[in-house]
Amino acid sequence: MKFSIERGTLLKAVSQAQSVVERRNTIPILANVLIEAEGDTVQFRATDLDIEVVDKATAQVEKAGSTTVSAVTLHEIVRKLPDGALVTLTEDGVAGRLTVEAGRSNFNLATLPKEDFPVMASAEYASNFTAPAPVLRRLFDKSKFAISTEETRYYLNGVYLHVSDSENGKVLRAVATDGHRLARIDADLPMEAGDMPGVIVPRKTVGELRKLLDDDEMLIAVSVSETKIRFATPNITLTSKVIDGTFPDYSRVIPVGNTRKMEVDASEFASAVDRVATVSSERSRAVKMSLEEDRLILSVNAPDSGAAEEELAVAYNDERLEIGFNAKYLLEIASQVDRENAVFMFNSSGDPTLMREGSDTSAVYVVMPMRV
Amino acid sequence: MKFSIERGTLLKAVSQAQSVVERRNTIPILANVLIEAEGDTVQFRATDLDIEVVDKATAQVEKAGSTTVSAVTLHEIVRKLPDGALVTLTEDGVAGRLTVEAGRSNFNLATLPKEDFPVMASAEYASNFTAPAPVLRRLFDKSKFAISTEETRYYLNGVYLHVSDSENGKVLRAVATDGHRLARIDADLPMEAGDMPGVIVPRKTVGELRKLLDDDEMLIAVSVSETKIRFATPNITLTSKVIDGTFPDYSRVIPVGNTRKMEVDASEFASAVDRVATVSSERSRAVKMSLEEDRLILSVNAPDSGAAEEELAVAYNDERLEIGFNAKYLLEIASQVDRENAVFMFNSSGDPTLMREGSDTSAVYVVMPMRV
Repeated sequence: MKFSIERGTLLKAVSQAQSVVERRNTIPILANVLIEAEGDTVQFRATDLDIEVVDKATAQVEKAGSTTVSAVTLHEIVRKLPDGALVTLTEDGVAGRLTVEAGRSNFNLATLPKEDFPVMASAEYASNFTAPAPVLRRLFDKSKFAISTEETRYYLNGVYLHVSDSENGKVLRAVATDGHRLARIDADLPMEAGDMPGVIVPRKTVGELRKLLDDDEMLIAVSVSETKIRFATPNITLTSKVIDGTFPDYSRVIPVGNTRKMEVDASEFASAVDRVATVSSERSRAVKMSLEEDRLILSVNAPDSGAAEEELAVAYNDERLEIGFNAKYLLEIASQVDRENAVFMFNSSGDPTLMREGSDTSAVYVVMPMRV
Repeated sequence: MKFSIERGTLLKAVSQAQSVVERRNTIPILANVLIEAEGDTVQFRATDLDIEVVDKATAQVEKAGSTTVSAVTLHEIVRKLPDGALVTLTEDGVAGRLTVEAGRSNFNLATLPKEDFPVMASAEYASNFTAPAPVLRRLFDKSKFAISTEETRYYLNGVYLHVSDSENGKVLRAVATDGHRLARIDADLPMEAGDMPGVIVPRKTVGELRKLLDDDEMLIAVSVSETKIRFATPNITLTSKVIDGTFPDYSRVIPVGNTRKMEVDASEFASAVDRVATVSSERSRAVKMSLEEDRLILSVNAPDSGAAEEELAVAYNDERLEIGFNAKYLLEIASQVDRENAVFMFNSSGDPTLMREGSDTSAVYVVMPMRV
């Protein structure tokens, strides 16, 4: 194998690959990236056995072939090479070495046989559709903060992506929850996505996927089976196992009878919550919201360090209400609001509270109160 | 005590104070900042018993007085307040509380009696002089990387600031070393600094001092005794104990007979060292320099991960030489070079190597070789 490639192109391809590689793993080949050169294309493939990413790049291939080499070392080398350099990679099959040359720099890296590299089995996908990058970005960006980190509740360690009925007809829906708060984000159902099976996309996959979604103009090809999901752009294919479990019936958690409505400027609200939470104790982080007509008082009372109180002008005309929340949860949902106003729908101080942006029901958040 | 102060002014004063406070300490009062209001001035004082910093700020003092309050909490609150806010601090001596008010925000913080606050004893200083901020900045910035972190060699845990003879007459000199490398930086001797006792300025003090030295126009008043050093601007006074120990005779370490001279572009050299070190093992980080006429080859050979080699054009016309160094040490001294060229003076592969910037002898670095 021998090919030459522009440093920037190589860096981009190797970056995506090395980020999938687990830093600590006991199987040496999993630290490597599989490089395959043929025609005018080089493929870089990396996996952690659950996620596989394949990056394609254009290169001047002098001799077709393939090998595997440490993903992190290759990435570090390419990152440190000067911008605009032409990089030549040559495999010496006999010595088991890969040479990386650029200008007056010369690297000689240990390889492992390509036969040992675990290529993910191809799958039959039940559903294939395309979705614009911004649509997928919104679905995952707005839901991922609520993903559970409790390993015992493994079926909550991802975003539940599925087709659902809504008041506006069928939608593509992303739901995540950790039992304390929940995010439910809807998007228009893409053509031909109607028969997509519901799948739980793992947290790490959500993170890796994010890098494919930066380009507003990009169309992403999505393929879904009961066990796998694949996202593809012309250059990058990300395939991931989905979580083998049943996502709980979240619809029962979303309150429908909450009638006490408070509307507040989202960024003012977030700043005020952040300020009063300064004096809260590390463990509880409880913030009390006291509501009366058009007035919200946020307060924290921590016997050790002190007390804090802040008043905000809001739109509210229901009875007085006192309700407590974890400051972190309040901040996280308030920071999801893109438009100006956050609308909170309360019932009582013991019931889950609903939050949405203005009158938009395509992004709905639920947060459980806590005693204060 | 009651006073009002602009948020930006307060933030600046409290920032410097809270950074001296140790995050973990068993004596509660040391977590606090002592606030003293009188006339039109408020003083903020913090200490870790080794360093004391006092920040003065102008405020509208309604009622003179003083109290102590958590430095970190106060800093967090002020940081989160909107820019331009007027902040009012009021002490309720009976309740033992300090109220912080700004707009619709209201905080109530626990205080500790000001009598418990350990104010550093004032000292007789043997020497008082002034030095421009850029001069002190250069002395400490260029030497601090070589400060030892070995606690057993406590007398190397700082920068040795003293008056010395040089080929250009008496100078103010900063020296730091960890036994593997050494930095010796000279500055013109300030007026009246001639009788300054030599002191070892602790690492933490060097870090805190750095914040006083950003303003190029600032003159710093320096006072030195056998046990303490003080740096003062009109608003900030930093007093620190010095390390109670004897700095070793560093002059014996600085080679005088090195005649093999190599001149190289410092940033090209640093980039090349950084690149070849990519494949070096975590533990040794050894880089070999092979010199022949006007040519330097940097190389690394790590049996596990691979090998790397890079050629650089240099100015050198002595015999062939092979010498090894820790890559981190080479990178650190190369990054001290402000001008274009680094000049290395070698003797043999087993002797300490000297590095300086061009023909300037006011900043000299020594690095020990290692076997490769």
